Amino acid sequence: MGDPAGIGPEILAKAWMQRKDAGLPAFFATGDARAIAAVWDGPVETILHPAAANGVFDHALPVLTVEDGGEIIPGRPDVAGARCALRALELAAGLVRSGAARALVTAPVSKAQLYHIGFNYPGQTEFVAERCGIAGENAVMMLAGPDLRVVPITTHVALADVGALLSIDLLVAKGRATARGLTRNFGIAAPRIAFAGLNPHAGEGGAIGREEIEIIAPAVAQLCAEGIAATGPFAADTLFHPRARLTYDAVMCCYHDQALIPIKTLYFDEGVNITLGLPIVRTSPDHGTAFNIAGENIAEPGAMIAAIRLAGDAADRRAAIGA
Amino acid sequence: MGDPAGIGPEILAKAWMQRKDAGLPAFFATGDARAIAAVWDGPVETILHPAAANGVFDHALPVLTVEDGGEIIPGRPDVAGARCALRALELAAGLVRSGAARALVTAPVSKAQLYHIGFNYPGQTEFVAERCGIAGENAVMMLAGPDLRVVPITTHVALADVGALLSIDLLVAKGRATARGLTRNFGIAAPRIAFAGLNPHAGEGGAIGREEIEIIAPAVAQLCAEGIAATGPFAADTLFHPRARLTYDAVMCCYHDQALIPIKTLYFDEGVNITLGLPIVRTSPDHGTAFNIAGENIAEPGAMIAAIRLAGDAADRRAAIGA
Repeated sequence: MGDPAGIGPEILAKAWMQRKDAGLPAFFATGDARAIAAVWDGPVETILHPAAANGVFDHALPVLTVEDGGEIIPGRPDVAGARCALRALELAAGLVRSGAARALVTAPVSKAQLYHIGFNYPGQTEFVAERCGIAGENAVMMLAGPDLRVVPITTHVALADVGALLSIDLLVAKGRATARGLTRNFGIAAPRIAFAGLNPHAGEGGAIGREEIEIIAPAVAQLCAEGIAATGPFAADTLFHPRARLTYDAVMCCYHDQALIPIKTLYFDEGVNITLGLPIVRTSPDHGTAFNIAGENIAEPGAMIAAIRLAGDAADRRAAIGA
Repeated sequence: MGDPAGIGPEILAKAWMQRKDAGLPAFFATGDARAIAAVWDGPVETILHPAAANGVFDHALPVLTVEDGGEIIPGRPDVAGARCALRALELAAGLVRSGAARALVTAPVSKAQLYHIGFNYPGQTEFVAERCGIAGENAVMMLAGPDLRVVPITTHVALADVGALLSIDLLVAKGRATARGLTRNFGIAAPRIAFAGLNPHAGEGGAIGREEIEIIAPAVAQLCAEGIAATGPFAADTLFHPRARLTYDAVMCCYHDQALIPIKTLYFDEGVNITLGLPIVRTSPDHGTAFNIAGENIAEPGAMIAAIRLAGDAADRRAAIGA
């Protein structure tokens, strides 16, 4: 459910209301059921075990309750809410790890509040990775929209530091994980991954930056030698228009905004974050807690709906190939 | 006409064919008329003076001929073609400067070929600026699509060098020129200009980069003090989706791809480059010579059509306000 004072409870309820039109698989929430009641008049039914969700889902939103004892006021985050969000995440991750649920979808949390209660991970992704026995740096964040998937190779670092963080090893590792993730989660047998250049016009043959020559091209060559259909580096500005999007299955981007600008420009209300490299399926809507509009019944559930649908699809595909 | 071996001649001919449906003002080409005949069977009529264009435009594409004596083979650039392109540019710029024509639209040139004949400007923009008595650095490049306008504050420099090039003075100068250009060319009385942050999430309050605090925010404050409706810095990834695009008239971007990724993702075939800060109107289609498809009759004329239309509209607006 994410932070109970954010828009998580509302978009979960809205996703449940659209379950038939959107063709969603059965899902249940983990978190404080009162957070949903605070923003929604629809049917909520608490369950005691994931197995009960299938029988409930048709007529009510099933909630496996995690109570924190605090008062819940939409738009007013506090440490009690953060504790609730963390317990809900821990419970949900454990249920998926154990096989009691097929996939994990995380609603947004407040990192600021989580830090107050001692949470010391960069985000939910790294927490989930650790619970799965995977080093956080081996979990790969992919943002997916209807016809575009992007992987930021570096994320929350100052732009000036990006160049120094890029290395052939890093790009190869991310490329491998992306190719594998495209097969396991999206059912793409021979994924095509395109690398964006770091500099304008992909450096124009070294005239405006050499990272393309010294780092990106060698990484592409190494991936190709391993049998992965990697291409690039390409000029980033001509890589995301409709015809270009037909030529690859994912773009490897050098920095946060190179990946996030195109996906959010095109699919602001339906972008999904999927974590590759984990033994479980984990997705999340690509937006924040939006405390400023929590409780106003105006939050868009599109990204949550897309995240739940992709989680179900990815779980199906993994089951089909035994991954 | 730009380089005679590029797609310039073809997209000019296609624009002329769509002149009525697209509602284009009368225009004429400067360049070698043989370059058009090489790729198009339609009516071409050479004229000896711009004033003759209006009488010809209805039934033929008027061309004010600049011959270079070379053989023209579509897709095969050479120095003779570069000389022709440069003479055509020089002539066209002079005609607009003198008032014999209302606006300048430049088709793409080959910088590599131009450099062979001693051309030593970064591009056509700086050449035109100099011919207008304006320092190249005071000409501001804006890319415009149907509902998005962006200004890259820095352009063809390595990404690692961007931060050091940003300064309060530079941002204020570009912001002023942009606001003035929006009024003169687009008829926007009180332009709203939004500044994008350099770093992810606009630096998160200094946690991941300080350029927002030390450079961008002070520049915005100074512009506001001058009466310009400047805002930001904003996280770049959430600045270009449809609802965000309603909140400003132009975005000031810190680097090339931050500006070019969103405009080319959305409007790859219809983006127009308009140079602000000149005494004349100058636009161009936002694409290159495309030598690889020249002569194949598959070049998209959308951006040239948009560039001609915007040039006419901007000239009308300047005339209306006496600018």
